Amino acid sequence: MFKAKAKSEVLKELIDVVSTLVDEVKFNVTKNGIGVKAVDPAHVAMVDLSLEKSAFEEFKGDDSELGIDINKMREVLKLARAGEIISMELDEDKNRLVMSVGNIVRRMSLVDTAGMSDPKVPSLDLPAKLAVRTDELRQGIRASESVSDHIALISSPDGFEMISEGDTDSVNLKLPKDLLEELSCKETVRALFPLDYFSSMIKAVSSAESITMHLGNDYPVRLEFKIADGKGEVKYLLAPRIESE
Amino acid sequence: MFKAKAKSEVLKELIDVVSTLVDEVKFNVTKNGIGVKAVDPAHVAMVDLSLEKSAFEEFKGDDSELGIDINKMREVLKLARAGEIISMELDEDKNRLVMSVGNIVRRMSLVDTAGMSDPKVPSLDLPAKLAVRTDELRQGIRASESVSDHIALISSPDGFEMISEGDTDSVNLKLPKDLLEELSCKETVRALFPLDYFSSMIKAVSSAESITMHLGNDYPVRLEFKIADGKGEVKYLLAPRIESE
Amino acid sequence: MFKAKAKSEVLKELIDVVSTLVDEVKFNVTKNGIGVKAVDPAHVAMVDLSLEKSAFEEFKGDDSELGIDINKMREVLKLARAGEIISMELDEDKNRLVMSVGNIVRRMSLVDTAGMSDPKVPSLDLPAKLAVRTDELRQGIRASESVSDHIALISSPDGFEMISEGDTDSVNLKLPKDLLEELSCKETVRALFPLDYFSSMIKAVSSAESITMHLGNDYPVRLEFKIADGKGEVKYLLAPRIESE
Repeated sequence: MFKAKAKSEVLKELIDVVSTLVDEVKFNVTKNGIGVKAVDPAHVAMVDLSLEKSAFEEFKGDDSELGIDINKMREVLKLARAGEIISMELDEDKNRLVMSVGNIVRRMSLVDTAGMSDPKVPSLDLPAKLAVRTDELRQGIRASESVSDHIALISSPDGFEMISEGDTDSVNLKLPKDLLEELSCKETVRALFPLDYFSSMIKAVSSAESITMHLGNDYPVRLEFKIADGKGEVKYLLAPRIESE
Repeated sequence: MFKAKAKSEVLKELIDVVSTLVDEVKFNVTKNGIGVKAVDPAHVAMVDLSLEKSAFEEFKGDDSELGIDINKMREVLKLARAGEIISMELDEDKNRLVMSVGNIVRRMSLVDTAGMSDPKVPSLDLPAKLAVRTDELRQGIRASESVSDHIALISSPDGFEMISEGDTDSVNLKLPKDLLEELSCKETVRALFPLDYFSSMIKAVSSAESITMHLGNDYPVRLEFKIADGKGEVKYLLAPRIESE
Repeated sequence: MFKAKAKSEVLKELIDVVSTLVDEVKFNVTKNGIGVKAVDPAHVAMVDLSLEKSAFEEFKGDDSELGIDINKMREVLKLARAGEIISMELDEDKNRLVMSVGNIVRRMSLVDTAGMSDPKVPSLDLPAKLAVRTDELRQGIRASESVSDHIALISSPDGFEMISEGDTDSVNLKLPKDLLEELSCKETVRALFPLDYFSSMIKAVSSAESITMHLGNDYPVRLEFKIADGKGEVKYLLAPRIESE
């Protein structure tokens, strides 16, 4: 069983976050809210999102799985004005999700979840933790996109650095300790990442003003941020590239 | 003879309405205003537009026919700022329409009207009449566009419904009686229409806040709305599709 | 040596003006400011731009030449918010320009200036001089673009006229003397120009409200306007086309 109402903004955040990695996804509904875990087709990145019951205007659910076509859900969200409430209800007999906005009802067939496994989120011991303003990261990414396909993330006891090295040009964003919202780092760690993935993830952050990063030497990066006014949380995991030098 | 001045908005409404069906059109000028009748090349839809003399800032005309290339007229309208006055004058010797906006004069050759017949508007006895808010129709169309190529319009004594049925998904917009501005309908009627035509027509409505529809069972729909602050009127006629079930 | 800070708007004006003609350009730095001269690859047009030291927030330079890839510089400018300061410094050892905006540093390799000659600006004796509002010229160009590839500029003791003649249609913009900010013209002169070049030049004018034109019979046109709040000046020279009649 699943029946809920939510502000369109809340669902839009969820959809933006998940759609960076996959087109179809499984919503794991429990009585406490919704959880989504997904790995991108190339197995480079993972998302682990949870949205509490309290993020919704109304919420009634028991354990069930909803296979969602993200583009269809996005189409419905585009019909809503800012602040408008979207209703969702699972029609179990017909295996459809019934979404309503204003006087419009969209009945969408659910996607088969049989082939969607629940990815296991690896537990990683990442020594550096830091919180960076989202707009700084965004500007750094925009500056890097014409220079290289990769981006190095570096954390040191002095601050954070993002470096993009091309054949002729380079870009770096340097944020000393006092420009970070949080820094816990005993020694310098560095890892290289595919810029397109990192960029999509940062662009999917809509409301969170800062992002917490966990970094290790040549280890995956874990990005964490809040959605839905703090009533939801996202963890992205992105695998590193091997540095050629 | 034809010489007139009009606010750019008034001409833009006229052009938007007509360009949904044709690229070239005949303006029938009389001493009382301008009339335009046109059928689209596939003979699926018809427009019958009239613009009173009073819709213009200045108007002098006697019976004449102007073959207009709609894109050229649109180019001139794009030069005008909001509220700016456009002057038009027929240069009969050179068979050109001289349009002025600001300090710019565009002389455009007229299109030959010999091949343009005046379509006869069929008189149809359509039993249901209802007035629907334009923005509700627009939202319903946007919701339907990804689901199907057709749309069913249904009028009943209880209200109006618009249904779009795809292979897996469906969309419906339901407006009960109290959300309609007018409803005169004794028994339920239903007809199916090509969504692209219906969508273009509704999108061509720029200022009218509501649209009057006349519907019958598997009959064409007649859409009526005002333009130019009530000093002009548009009638669209759209042929039905045969329902497969 | 070159080290300077400037508002992003000032650099953007410079880049917009120069990029209408070339992709790579040589900045001639002196202790008094920056000068740029360039001819487009087809040798139809020339730009001669100078930006005084006082246009910058800070400026230190001695005679040097910087080969600039305009697109790279534009990428950096796009990172800046309105009013934000951009720092530039020549790294002579590595032959790079180091640009900073916010916390971001972009190091860009300079382009080889060996093949870039300094074009000699021809001294022309153009009998007519007139100053025209930029927005009038822009509107005239927009009106002409669908009608012809050429535009005739005409100056007479009575005013200025711009004519575009197509096969079936024509556009003209007529500005009588009292709508011009300046007019010094003893007899009518006329010359024809390629519309695409003329259009790009006028569109590159961002802040100047009027443009001074120097015209002669079938002679090049010289366009002059201010940039950087009057602390910089641009001269465009555009070669005429031969009139077929």
